Amino acid sequence: MYERHGNESVFTWAAPPLKFGNGAIDEIGPEIAALGASSCLVITDAGVRETGVPDRIHDQLVAAGMKAEVFDRVAIEPTDQSIDEAVAWARQQDWDCFIAVGGGSAMDTAKAVNLLTTHPGELLDFVTPPIGAGKAPWLPVKPLIAVPTTAGTGSESTTICVVDFLGLHLKAGVSHPKLRPTLAIVDPLTTVSLPPQVTAASGMDVLSHALESYTSVRFDAKPAPEDPMKRPAFCGSNPVSDVWCEQALLLVGQYLRRAVMNGRDLEARYHMALASMSAGTGFGNAGTHLPHANAYPIAGAVQNYRAEGYPEMPMVPHGQAVSSTAAAVFRWTYPGDPGRHLRAAELLTGQTFTRTDGAEALAHVLDELMSDIGMPAGLRSFGYDESHLDTLVDGTMKQTRQLAVVPRPVTRQALTDIFRESL
Amino acid sequence: MYERHGNESVFTWAAPPLKFGNGAIDEIGPEIAALGASSCLVITDAGVRETGVPDRIHDQLVAAGMKAEVFDRVAIEPTDQSIDEAVAWARQQDWDCFIAVGGGSAMDTAKAVNLLTTHPGELLDFVTPPIGAGKAPWLPVKPLIAVPTTAGTGSESTTICVVDFLGLHLKAGVSHPKLRPTLAIVDPLTTVSLPPQVTAASGMDVLSHALESYTSVRFDAKPAPEDPMKRPAFCGSNPVSDVWCEQALLLVGQYLRRAVMNGRDLEARYHMALASMSAGTGFGNAGTHLPHANAYPIAGAVQNYRAEGYPEMPMVPHGQAVSSTAAAVFRWTYPGDPGRHLRAAELLTGQTFTRTDGAEALAHVLDELMSDIGMPAGLRSFGYDESHLDTLVDGTMKQTRQLAVVPRPVTRQALTDIFRESL
Ligand SMILES: [Fe+2]
Ligand SMILES: [Fe+2]
Repeated sequence: MYERHGNESVFTWAAPPLKFGNGAIDEIGPEIAALGASSCLVITDAGVRETGVPDRIHDQLVAAGMKAEVFDRVAIEPTDQSIDEAVAWARQQDWDCFIAVGGGSAMDTAKAVNLLTTHPGELLDFVTPPIGAGKAPWLPVKPLIAVPTTAGTGSESTTICVVDFLGLHLKAGVSHPKLRPTLAIVDPLTTVSLPPQVTAASGMDVLSHALESYTSVRFDAKPAPEDPMKRPAFCGSNPVSDVWCEQALLLVGQYLRRAVMNGRDLEARYHMALASMSAGTGFGNAGTHLPHANAYPIAGAVQNYRAEGYPEMPMVPHGQAVSSTAAAVFRWTYPGDPGRHLRAAELLTGQTFTRTDGAEALAHVLDELMSDIGMPAGLRSFGYDESHLDTLVDGTMKQTRQLAVVPRPVTRQALTDIFRESL
Repeated sequence: MYERHGNESVFTWAAPPLKFGNGAIDEIGPEIAALGASSCLVITDAGVRETGVPDRIHDQLVAAGMKAEVFDRVAIEPTDQSIDEAVAWARQQDWDCFIAVGGGSAMDTAKAVNLLTTHPGELLDFVTPPIGAGKAPWLPVKPLIAVPTTAGTGSESTTICVVDFLGLHLKAGVSHPKLRPTLAIVDPLTTVSLPPQVTAASGMDVLSHALESYTSVRFDAKPAPEDPMKRPAFCGSNPVSDVWCEQALLLVGQYLRRAVMNGRDLEARYHMALASMSAGTGFGNAGTHLPHANAYPIAGAVQNYRAEGYPEMPMVPHGQAVSSTAAAVFRWTYPGDPGRHLRAAELLTGQTFTRTDGAEALAHVLDELMSDIGMPAGLRSFGYDESHLDTLVDGTMKQTRQLAVVPRPVTRQALTDIFRESL
């Protein structure tokens, strides 16, 4: 931490300006007007549109004298096809600004639309090699206002847009500081209508962001970069991300059960929105590791599983995929920093744990919470068994961004054990 | 917090992107190059220039092929005259970006130079009425990179520029989101050469920022604004500022004594730099209250006091002025939220306090810390006595920005008592 001996000594941190509070979305009209924008595209999905929030925003903009439209064909897990459709639609007109309303899908789609309406080319041009051409955006982009309504993703704080490239059979991310929203408007009242199972999965996503960042490899336990301007998107845990992650763990422990049990518990909704923002601010710079890396193949290889509260199609919701291997992962990472794992268990419960409790303390806290809020009990729920272990491990091994901040050397054997334990 | 009954329900928060770590200033060349800038003005004061840091930055820029100059005539407490001089000098050429190196004086001067080289007019045009014309900047400003080297001010995080208007005999601030630095580069190694008394005063400034924000009026205990785009610069304490203030108090309690006793204690320097940044992130949005309001007349009316480690002129360093009434102020604010005052005392000491300890707990913790690090014992040290009480109270009553977030109704009697107790 104090001197460079070939190790990294610098961490970076950034977050968008925040407007937070009940009723905050009613201030979008004046916010957009202050930007001097005269046309604005609201990007959302059909489910979120049913809540009325996107149209409430649209109507404010029209009342303020702006041209505004709502695009509501965001796919629940954005694919290159769904992004292409959104971009083609948006390119028909000039837009002064974009507003993403919804969860990670809407925000990631809006990031891609912003990039590809201000730059020529296609998304693959901006994906890291060898998958894509690895270009960095070289032109200015438009203001992008993120209005997260799921208290989960944290995408409002990050520079990352994750897309499923169908033809390539893989998910990949585009990441650049220019993709970070220019303002996050978080209104906890927009989350009141989320069904219990969506609240539960989104809340476990928040928990995973915080816990993975908190336990990710320390920023100064890596080699210094050759070029300081080419640091990886995820810099590893650091003194700033730690503060945000601890706050998120504390809030999830206190309020997630309440938000799931009674969606109209406004105090719980308020604090889960705060938890999501805190975790997003923490992990957006530090990074997530194995539970998120594992989530890619878990979601990608699903055949028949359908999740209550989600669209009628085979899918493992992101929060379910992420949390399904969390207990096994943190049992495995425990020896690298027992104190931090025990501290996380303490923040989540308000109880005290000691080294005698060992790796089981945090694993048990996670299992108990997931059981209380009705999360699926294991990978078998999604239709996986021993025969899928190799496929799942293969999928995780491709997630280089996440693997770079796992706090222990990753081997196929370790991953196989984690997936088996999570069945 | 959960519904609007005519009360404010929204808080806002923002902080500049951060690059933090030992050696971070060696990355300024590539950072500026990435902005596409070809000319850059480094703004600092003569004392900081002697440390060599401004010229190290200048030389990096020149080596990267940029035109760069150093302006080192920043006044220790910026006045309208010193700002005019800096602006007149800067206006002779076009600058693509500004780099402020030093404490609050350098950063505040750079904010004013950025404003007045991109806008016509003078500083008073941008000061709140009735003192000034209350204009908001209407043109784009240039990138401003803040390199704080005193682990004190937090100005790198804020939108505020404080200036002593000599002819008007008052200090006033200009505040606008466009004045916030676009990047803060914090390199703890730049603070190693600060003399003990400067370290002590700067550290007490950090402590005051955190403690004042933490105890400022709650954001939702104020009326909702008529116009949501015209919220005051200080919104009062809120869930985000709280987290950062608590972190700053914890770090100051653990590391300030060590940094004062041994300036080469790199671990202490590192964590005081982190504390300063944390407090800046908290108070920049929540606000400071009475100790900072009192500091204006305390610094303004000084006759002969000279402070060790500071320039040879009559002055009360900001950190000394701020902390000189802190114990009395927090004794007075204690009844409004005993729990929060006791918690602050706990964070500063690692000890446990109860309601039985009362208002004296925090006051005693502050007195003890100030005594340990050799801070002046009271206002008499600066040359004040009973005959100055009215003048001091008059000066505080003019600080409307701070008075708006004091957690108790302010009366002349209360202020007189606080100043008398602080003699
Ligand atoms: Fe996630
Ligand atoms: Fe201050």
